[in-house]
Amino acid sequence: MPADAASFEDLGFAKVDHGREARRGFPEVIFCQNKTAEQIKAIALSIMKNGSVLLATRLPREIYDELKPDLGKAEYCPISRTLTHVPPKKRKKPVGRIAVVSAGTSDMSVAEEAARTAEVFGNRVTRIYDAGVAGIHRLLHHRQSLSSARVVIVVAGMEGALPSVVAGLVKAPVIAVPTSVGYGASFGGVAALLAMLNSCASGVTVVNIDNGFGAGYAASMMNRM
Amino acid sequence: MPADAASFEDLGFAKVDHGREARRGFPEVIFCQNKTAEQIKAIALSIMKNGSVLLATRLPREIYDELKPDLGKAEYCPISRTLTHVPPKKRKKPVGRIAVVSAGTSDMSVAEEAARTAEVFGNRVTRIYDAGVAGIHRLLHHRQSLSSARVVIVVAGMEGALPSVVAGLVKAPVIAVPTSVGYGASFGGVAALLAMLNSCASGVTVVNIDNGFGAGYAASMMNRM
Amino acid sequence: MPADAASFEDLGFAKVDHGREARRGFPEVIFCQNKTAEQIKAIALSIMKNGSVLLATRLPREIYDELKPDLGKAEYCPISRTLTHVPPKKRKKPVGRIAVVSAGTSDMSVAEEAARTAEVFGNRVTRIYDAGVAGIHRLLHHRQSLSSARVVIVVAGMEGALPSVVAGLVKAPVIAVPTSVGYGASFGGVAALLAMLNSCASGVTVVNIDNGFGAGYAASMMNRM
Amino acid sequence: MPADAASFEDLGFAKVDHGREARRGFPEVIFCQNKTAEQIKAIALSIMKNGSVLLATRLPREIYDELKPDLGKAEYCPISRTLTHVPPKKRKKPVGRIAVVSAGTSDMSVAEEAARTAEVFGNRVTRIYDAGVAGIHRLLHHRQSLSSARVVIVVAGMEGALPSVVAGLVKAPVIAVPTSVGYGASFGGVAALLAMLNSCASGVTVVNIDNGFGAGYAASMMNRM
Amino acid sequence: MPADAASFEDLGFAKVDHGREARRGFPEVIFCQNKTAEQIKAIALSIMKNGSVLLATRLPREIYDELKPDLGKAEYCPISRTLTHVPPKKRKKPVGRIAVVSAGTSDMSVAEEAARTAEVFGNRVTRIYDAGVAGIHRLLHHRQSLSSARVVIVVAGMEGALPSVVAGLVKAPVIAVPTSVGYGASFGGVAALLAMLNSCASGVTVVNIDNGFGAGYAASMMNRM
Amino acid sequence: MPADAASFEDLGFAKVDHGREARRGFPEVIFCQNKTAEQIKAIALSIMKNGSVLLATRLPREIYDELKPDLGKAEYCPISRTLTHVPPKKRKKPVGRIAVVSAGTSDMSVAEEAARTAEVFGNRVTRIYDAGVAGIHRLLHHRQSLSSARVVIVVAGMEGALPSVVAGLVKAPVIAVPTSVGYGASFGGVAALLAMLNSCASGVTVVNIDNGFGAGYAASMMNRM
Amino acid sequence: MPADAASFEDLGFAKVDHGREARRGFPEVIFCQNKTAEQIKAIALSIMKNGSVLLATRLPREIYDELKPDLGKAEYCPISRTLTHVPPKKRKKPVGRIAVVSAGTSDMSVAEEAARTAEVFGNRVTRIYDAGVAGIHRLLHHRQSLSSARVVIVVAGMEGALPSVVAGLVKAPVIAVPTSVGYGASFGGVAALLAMLNSCASGVTVVNIDNGFGAGYAASMMNRM
Amino acid sequence: MPADAASFEDLGFAKVDHGREARRGFPEVIFCQNKTAEQIKAIALSIMKNGSVLLATRLPREIYDELKPDLGKAEYCPISRTLTHVPPKKRKKPVGRIAVVSAGTSDMSVAEEAARTAEVFGNRVTRIYDAGVAGIHRLLHHRQSLSSARVVIVVAGMEGALPSVVAGLVKAPVIAVPTSVGYGASFGGVAALLAMLNSCASGVTVVNIDNGFGAGYAASMMNRM
Repeated sequence: MPADAASFEDLGFAKVDHGREARRGFPEVIFCQNKTAEQIKAIALSIMKNGSVLLATRLPREIYDELKPDLGKAEYCPISRTLTHVPPKKRKKPVGRIAVVSAGTSDMSVAEEAARTAEVFGNRVTRIYDAGVAGIHRLLHHRQSLSSARVVIVVAGMEGALPSVVAGLVKAPVIAVPTSVGYGASFGGVAALLAMLNSCASGVTVVNIDNGFGAGYAASMMNRM
Repeated sequence: MPADAASFEDLGFAKVDHGREARRGFPEVIFCQNKTAEQIKAIALSIMKNGSVLLATRLPREIYDELKPDLGKAEYCPISRTLTHVPPKKRKKPVGRIAVVSAGTSDMSVAEEAARTAEVFGNRVTRIYDAGVAGIHRLLHHRQSLSSARVVIVVAGMEGALPSVVAGLVKAPVIAVPTSVGYGASFGGVAALLAMLNSCASGVTVVNIDNGFGAGYAASMMNRM
Repeated sequence: MPADAASFEDLGFAKVDHGREARRGFPEVIFCQNKTAEQIKAIALSIMKNGSVLLATRLPREIYDELKPDLGKAEYCPISRTLTHVPPKKRKKPVGRIAVVSAGTSDMSVAEEAARTAEVFGNRVTRIYDAGVAGIHRLLHHRQSLSSARVVIVVAGMEGALPSVVAGLVKAPVIAVPTSVGYGASFGGVAALLAMLNSCASGVTVVNIDNGFGAGYAASMMNRM
Repeated sequence: MPADAASFEDLGFAKVDHGREARRGFPEVIFCQNKTAEQIKAIALSIMKNGSVLLATRLPREIYDELKPDLGKAEYCPISRTLTHVPPKKRKKPVGRIAVVSAGTSDMSVAEEAARTAEVFGNRVTRIYDAGVAGIHRLLHHRQSLSSARVVIVVAGMEGALPSVVAGLVKAPVIAVPTSVGYGASFGGVAALLAMLNSCASGVTVVNIDNGFGAGYAASMMNRM
Repeated sequence: MPADAASFEDLGFAKVDHGREARRGFPEVIFCQNKTAEQIKAIALSIMKNGSVLLATRLPREIYDELKPDLGKAEYCPISRTLTHVPPKKRKKPVGRIAVVSAGTSDMSVAEEAARTAEVFGNRVTRIYDAGVAGIHRLLHHRQSLSSARVVIVVAGMEGALPSVVAGLVKAPVIAVPTSVGYGASFGGVAALLAMLNSCASGVTVVNIDNGFGAGYAASMMNRM
Repeated sequence: MPADAASFEDLGFAKVDHGREARRGFPEVIFCQNKTAEQIKAIALSIMKNGSVLLATRLPREIYDELKPDLGKAEYCPISRTLTHVPPKKRKKPVGRIAVVSAGTSDMSVAEEAARTAEVFGNRVTRIYDAGVAGIHRLLHHRQSLSSARVVIVVAGMEGALPSVVAGLVKAPVIAVPTSVGYGASFGGVAALLAMLNSCASGVTVVNIDNGFGAGYAASMMNRM
Repeated sequence: MPADAASFEDLGFAKVDHGREARRGFPEVIFCQNKTAEQIKAIALSIMKNGSVLLATRLPREIYDELKPDLGKAEYCPISRTLTHVPPKKRKKPVGRIAVVSAGTSDMSVAEEAARTAEVFGNRVTRIYDAGVAGIHRLLHHRQSLSSARVVIVVAGMEGALPSVVAGLVKAPVIAVPTSVGYGASFGGVAALLAMLNSCASGVTVVNIDNGFGAGYAASMMNRM
Repeated sequence: MPADAASFEDLGFAKVDHGREARRGFPEVIFCQNKTAEQIKAIALSIMKNGSVLLATRLPREIYDELKPDLGKAEYCPISRTLTHVPPKKRKKPVGRIAVVSAGTSDMSVAEEAARTAEVFGNRVTRIYDAGVAGIHRLLHHRQSLSSARVVIVVAGMEGALPSVVAGLVKAPVIAVPTSVGYGASFGGVAALLAMLNSCASGVTVVNIDNGFGAGYAASMMNRM
């Protein structure tokens, strides 16, 4: 047995892929779920030392509290559970405009993850967080704001109907994010996911359940085109 | 082995439950799927002879063509695949008003089954068949008509979002009917069914996939209250 | 990044939709799952201050204990986990009669949520809570009481057979509520849900698993017709 | 490559297990699905020549028509799609009594497969084929007949509620057979299967969807005890 | 709102069905899952006071520890999590013989629930608990013991193959009990359940996942025939 | 009953939404599945008469053969089963570049639907149709071509791994299209769909199974930004 | 639109990967499902012309009949639906020994596909096709033959129990192949697949449902080690 | 009731199958999940006393801490949660070479379980733990190392694409291990499992989700051939 298998690091972990920004256009992002505070800290410090943009997602507050002394420069958002830091020389005037739409309290965590991902990668973001399909007048009230966005991210749980309605109102590509909000036959977001995949409105593409980050990342790619 | 098991009839089939109207308020209905032309004819004639309202659902045109010579008095609708007959003394002024809403061509078969079921049981029906969520202006155009209905049946396939939007506009109970229209991840109507069960709009109840009859029947019960 | 994203409230949350009663006939209801004590308190106080009927569902006792000092006028029911308050000028003589039927201990929580929802919206409610299909004599014992109801809500877990049997006995519309009661192949209520969607008795409509509130709400809409 | 792989027979097929009756108490049975007319004929003739009881299940009429000239002594039942023959010296007075209960036309094919399987293995069978849960009075009408059976087989599609109700009325073991009868969310019998597995009535055991034969076979084993 | 809805008891709970023994042949059994210590105690005392056999299943040790002072006469088995008591005048010589077969440690809890259910209802039980299909010699070692049983209960998790092998060795009816033992694609017992429903050995019937009680109960019914 | 319900047209069908191009940027498209030749012809002629771009998808060859005499100006592609026509004044120099990648014969039908959708809406398209993950050298061979695309559509059945590998090589947004190609545990495309939703490569969004059109449409929206 | 998209071939199809044998050790194999006779013929002729071993799987007899005149040298097996040809200079003495085990008629098609795949790639194969778990004596009869194999392929439908039992008897790696044989809750082979993935016997690995070819191929790789 | 049923041991538990090594080639392994510290200790001591190789899997650190005083000679690996001990006279020069490939931090636990299982059974193991499909260059970097392995184990969660890519690069058999790493539509590893079963690369076989042990065991069998 290998004498050196005493820790994750020894087995090859925590090698930050600093070349990714060149290859793919965006730097590596830390997905904190299933990582220890120690692992997150090591990667975050390496990224910040390298002068790259820092984005850590799915970071529980308890773990952030452990990291705070060492990562004080970064900003923690408890709603989206993200930790972000844009070094001064990476800060530039945000371009285009990405709209993030959701219906209510419960979906806000995922919506904010999408919004902050887009912001940290240099996009201007408009938040529309009170627009459920059961009160269609509220959505129509934001019609102009929606129409002027270059990309629209729509976040919804339960029946996942919002992307279809929004896509019918705009010319921009719509990225739909199903959330695990719901109970019973929502099956942890499956109902919303299926609804979005079957949208009768053309131009809707879908990401995984609760994947606000993925939507924000893809929207950034599109907006930068 | 029983000598008398030579036919379905011998085994107890085709006993029409003429007492049902008294017990449940509506007469027995013929669900034609899995029944032979001969079986359907026998039940239909028994119902008509008894002076009851005739409603046969899921009757394929080929089988209707066989039945036509004997059941000429009844009306066949190829869209909803229903056969109906209301004897003169059962004809009365339709009451209340039930709205049946659907989005397009493919859902129309199920929507018509619901509409005709409601009509044959004495309800007045308004059809709104061009109202998809991806063109919300078309639905809003019918807003007044929707608001004045006593019960609203909403038929939708694919993402099944229509009932949520409609229920947000009306005070009447909404019965949602998922249809098997769609492909891929619609899973034969499961996507629409789940969406409807998870509707964020209160007051929506749901029936089985493609069960236009069930929706029309339940709406009749509600309208008669 | 927006400087104002420090709390849920700043992001647009907790705007109570006081106009809903006019639009839909019933005031906004608080679904407490995934909300903090603070959020619930804010909405509840806003509703009570507005003189509306208060109904909060899925409120765990621990959170209620935190709210009690501020919401002492409202009544908490530990079985249904609901918090309710009807202001004096909204109290009127209950109309019609809604029957709520269930089989045993475990389904009672959902049944009570349905019953209290119906009551708070002004309906008279009859509870029949000891009627399982495996002891059909107990159900038949309540036959008269069932027959005289204007709407019947049937709550059942496990095999979900009760709505079919009840619907065969009454002329009123039946709203079936599957519960997550069961184990193994009940799959958290899916077995009961599927059974109810496939009911051989016409006139049965279904709501989401454990959605006692939804059933009570829809029944109120029907009873008020 | 083996020169002898020219036919199924050469690869080891069609060896009838004549020793099974000694080992398990019942002779081998022919499950015709996926077998050719030629294969079925070969096995059937071998069984009959051996003087054993012949039972072939899932035999389509078209294939039976091909076999008829050679297997004229056997009886074909088009409802259950079974072919049976009991040689004179195997005929004895049927013992005990097995009740087979079902609700209507569509389940009858499976119910008859169960009934004929039980009969061919020497059991007395009572058929109750008009007992659906939505008309509970019809079932109660047969109460005495049910109570005196030693084993009860209950066949049901759609919501699969019948076994729970029947088991609540009798002291005998109940074997539940879900059928694929239904549409939409019945998922080819899954709804009925799950309902039966979750029966609130103790003493119910379940076989595969449409497995009338399996139920008849198990009931025979129990009745012979 | 009803003034009397302050507790479960007031809503109709805890009415023990003392008539069940006459109707169904066995007394009521307490399914402890989802019940409080207080509720269990009330029912158990009522049953014991009535002189009936006591069987409580799914009773966690922590709750038993609370009940112990009041229910000292009853016997608690920590493996099967059952509480049992047979009053002296109900004790009689056990009849017939039921074999309970399982493969290993993890399935033993369910197997013991089946065995103790059968014992408390007056059956003689043989336990064979070390017989997995991957070591077929161990099963064959018990062949004689298996062959002489009147009913065989086979408990298995993971691939659920044991019932098929056992059924091939015996003439008695086999009741298969899938357990939730396994991980990954066992899906909480679904893999074993499906395997058992599809058993290639005739005469196998199946109960719900982890339903040792149901198997013991059904076996008692069969053995008593 | 309405006297005018004799045909689909009378019920509101076949109203082409000529205003959609203004609202959403692209004209209405004909989804031919579930439509009759007559219905398709009516809509296609209306679109062509209006001077709009014609795109009909899922058009079987048999039905095209019926339409050919009337729609001779349009081009039918048997691989993608699309019918297309771009009127002279809508023809312009294609912009940007969309790459469509797939692995082999079986996925080509869906890939071509995506490619032709993109082309008909004015985009330049590069096809890379021989790039499976099991022969990664073939994909790497196209690396430069991939890198210079503005949007990449990746079509894959079976394990659906191709989008993850492609997304790791490019800076452009990747739209993944699962296909129903496969057998057994591919479950009609579900395996590929799930793989794509769970892609470890950021920037991948997904459309419904076999939805080549949806991918081409969304890519057009993105390319036009 | 590309002028050259008139046929599959023009789009890049039918390029045989003659380099695969060097890279992976085995030549390219033709999976005939979804391919036309013309496509199959083109690839087969290219392979034979190149002097490689020919293996075509899932070739229906009707299509073979069309190919026969051109591919007369190749051997067609109607049971496994394979077309094979080993050119003289590729024929060598078969090595090792692979056992292929299955239970009965219905699984034989898949078993033969595995066996012939192994044979065409130069392995010696022993067929054991009459060994079901419900008659364990038949399997034990082949014990010696099983023990001496270097790799064992076990093919089973329905409950898929055979691999667990076989793996318990041998020291060789076992490749399990679930088949779609069964009905009802076998769900087209899912029951067998899950059983095999959950095998309690170590050393079992699994391939896709009905994938006899995959098993034969993997076994060849192992045997050649 | 049996007086001797007071503990698991009395019911037949903890009989170590010391004959397994002779029969199957490898000694018995302890699967710790669902076992108590006491049970694990008893079996481990019995194995070590017998002079066999000790391998215990899924051993949580908390339980190991309890065992440490008694099992000090054995080595605990917190990453793979395995406890291993190879007695001096069982230590021999490792043979062949097995490569274990995975993508990142989260899959490492399962990969290490596979690697250590292979090592404890006498195989030489190469670990490649930083090779995800979204950065294909990293995988290609290890190409030579992969090509020289006799068996390759590939561990992957999320979309499970890695085995297909690896299998395309090597001549050795590939054992794919899906992990439960992921969220949302990964369904606890189902997405990866399905992807692997549907691999377009021949020669891939699959084990259960998170079953690193099973892969290591099967690889050992193959390597020893």
